[in-house]
Amino acid sequence: MISEPFSHPQIQDGWFREKPLLWPGQALGLEIKKVLHHETSKYQDVLIFESTTYGIVLALDGVIQCTERDEFSYQEMITHLPMNSHPNPKKVLVIGGGDGGVLREVVKHESVEEVILCEIDETVINLSKKYLPKMSIGFNHPKVKVNIGDGFEFLKSKSNQFDVIITDSSDPVGPAEPLFQVKYFELMKNALRPGGIVTTQGECQWLHLHLIAEVQEYCRSLFPVVEYAYTTIPTYPSGQIGFILCSTNPSYNLKKPLRRWTEEEEAKLLKYYNAKIHETAFVLPQFTINGLKELEREAAEKKKHFLNNVIHKMFKELKNASHSSSESESKMSKIKVQNIVQLEKAHIKRNDYYYVSCHRNVLTSNFILSRLSLSHQ
Amino acid sequence: MISEPFSHPQIQDGWFREKPLLWPGQALGLEIKKVLHHETSKYQDVLIFESTTYGIVLALDGVIQCTERDEFSYQEMITHLPMNSHPNPKKVLVIGGGDGGVLREVVKHESVEEVILCEIDETVINLSKKYLPKMSIGFNHPKVKVNIGDGFEFLKSKSNQFDVIITDSSDPVGPAEPLFQVKYFELMKNALRPGGIVTTQGECQWLHLHLIAEVQEYCRSLFPVVEYAYTTIPTYPSGQIGFILCSTNPSYNLKKPLRRWTEEEEAKLLKYYNAKIHETAFVLPQFTINGLKELEREAAEKKKHFLNNVIHKMFKELKNASHSSSESESKMSKIKVQNIVQLEKAHIKRNDYYYVSCHRNVLTSNFILSRLSLSHQ
Repeated sequence: MISEPFSHPQIQDGWFREKPLLWPGQALGLEIKKVLHHETSKYQDVLIFESTTYGIVLALDGVIQCTERDEFSYQEMITHLPMNSHPNPKKVLVIGGGDGGVLREVVKHESVEEVILCEIDETVINLSKKYLPKMSIGFNHPKVKVNIGDGFEFLKSKSNQFDVIITDSSDPVGPAEPLFQVKYFELMKNALRPGGIVTTQGECQWLHLHLIAEVQEYCRSLFPVVEYAYTTIPTYPSGQIGFILCSTNPSYNLKKPLRRWTEEEEAKLLKYYNAKIHETAFVLPQFTINGLKELEREAAEKKKHFLNNVIHKMFKELKNASHSSSESESKMSKIKVQNIVQLEKAHIKRNDYYYVSCHRNVLTSNFILSRLSLSHQ
Repeated sequence: MISEPFSHPQIQDGWFREKPLLWPGQALGLEIKKVLHHETSKYQDVLIFESTTYGIVLALDGVIQCTERDEFSYQEMITHLPMNSHPNPKKVLVIGGGDGGVLREVVKHESVEEVILCEIDETVINLSKKYLPKMSIGFNHPKVKVNIGDGFEFLKSKSNQFDVIITDSSDPVGPAEPLFQVKYFELMKNALRPGGIVTTQGECQWLHLHLIAEVQEYCRSLFPVVEYAYTTIPTYPSGQIGFILCSTNPSYNLKKPLRRWTEEEEAKLLKYYNAKIHETAFVLPQFTINGLKELEREAAEKKKHFLNNVIHKMFKELKNASHSSSESESKMSKIKVQNIVQLEKAHIKRNDYYYVSCHRNVLTSNFILSRLSLSHQ
């Protein structure tokens, strides 16, 4: 029986069922013992219920974020993959993670001196403290500092501060959307100390290979080391979730833990992660290998095509300019700037990364300029 | 819109939703484009529908067995894990597997001379041939022979015939129940050629660790090599499924492929399996390692307790017998037989393995007899 007075549009006949926009045609349902809380916070719909077999469950905007039964898999993997790949992580930043689970894992590393959590939605923190004590225990540690605010904005004022940054976000719709954009990764990179590592929730290879390929592509334009890993977790769509890991240090091999606990420590400290699981998390099934390769090939084709179009257009404008004026040098610069502005305008939602990376190539390679000079001769 | 005239008790509002007995409190739903077929065969409820995002779906007794979108993961892993662990698999037996997917994978191995499929439910084969062409293509290969019948019965007449036996079964309720019992594994062992390998569907570590521990325990009483591996698959409960692999050859390391395709062949032939995935499939998360260890400890305790009780009872009976008669030797044998019968009666459903393995220990160790002799002195 569901207790009144709480109700939710996704609860029917004693079950909570996802109504996913990002993974249509499939939906996990969890049977409800009791609805504990439902409200619309400043940022999102927040639902907390006790399930019959998964313990307490937190759902944001109708999507399951964590359940007491399987949360450890996600929290341990998103934390220990980067933490154990870093030689000596002292200062850690967590963006999102309002349930406190990632904090709980970060402070298992003795090297940590300070961990800052920046969560946009204070409601999530407060409700987690009330209803999810096994996760929110993370907030109790003396090394933890909490900042309520937008992670994107928070990062703008930070540079050269963190050894590890973990983005524990929801999916790229709603408040987490900016956390999947290239500018966010640029800010994170800037906020890292030398040899720092960033890890973000990286969606599921069964569902969002395009998104994974896109994020990886623009990450590769920023970081010398970019990897995709994943963990299994029953209550996330398709039963698993991935992580994008990047490092500014080209010599890091994120696929092998640099530091490890003994087997006895693993048995005591951990419920999912261990040194062997660390390595296997980066081993991808063949459809992902083939799929990412194909998407990279397509993106390279698109980029080539896109650049050719831009060059063609610039040729034309330049030709007109040189006919109509003698100050062709200055016109050329102006047109170049205009075209860069145009490239920026061409940013398409969810495809940001692609156009931005084209833009980056244009700026850095001076390809267009050389072609223009060539044609000008 | 769902097409008439088919209906099914688990279809509502255009969605098929599992109503699982074996994984309560959680249920996957798939959105339906069109119901293609529904009937009750001699053995089970058979439903075939076209989903909006997972292609054609086969459900038996209300449980999703395969979808066109993700079936390759299961079929490739249950097949290539044993096949690539065997040096030269020529003769292969598939029990179950009426959709034909495992056959499709088995014949990718050139060494195979003959593969026999034994499926209890002909309806599944016929409907798969009609509605699941990408899987049932397996039936078209000239090396394939089909036997309609009970796999358990089929195995009784076979000995020393197969290099690899793959049990592609549904869950241990309904027609597949006998395929999880120790006697079935004894029959498979007997049907193997020297150095043969058996692999069975081995349930999910997130849901059925007890069952995995039980099956592994009685397998270890039969085979020198027993391993658990798993694959990810979105439409199975909790997003993954495991396999129990056993070999009669103590020198086999099933965790590393003995034979492997080149990377180019992997990219062409396979959608999930590759040589690296083979190795990672056996790497278990910490909760499984800890959980299995604890279950093994508990089982050993139980066994000790059970045997002690039996011995105590036999002592008592023997004492009475030696008081009341001079033919104590013959009485002793009789009591031993009676107690073995009693042990057999003690078989409890779903715990068969445990009492059977106790029984086996009693028979082979002569532990009780030695204790009896000891007390008789």
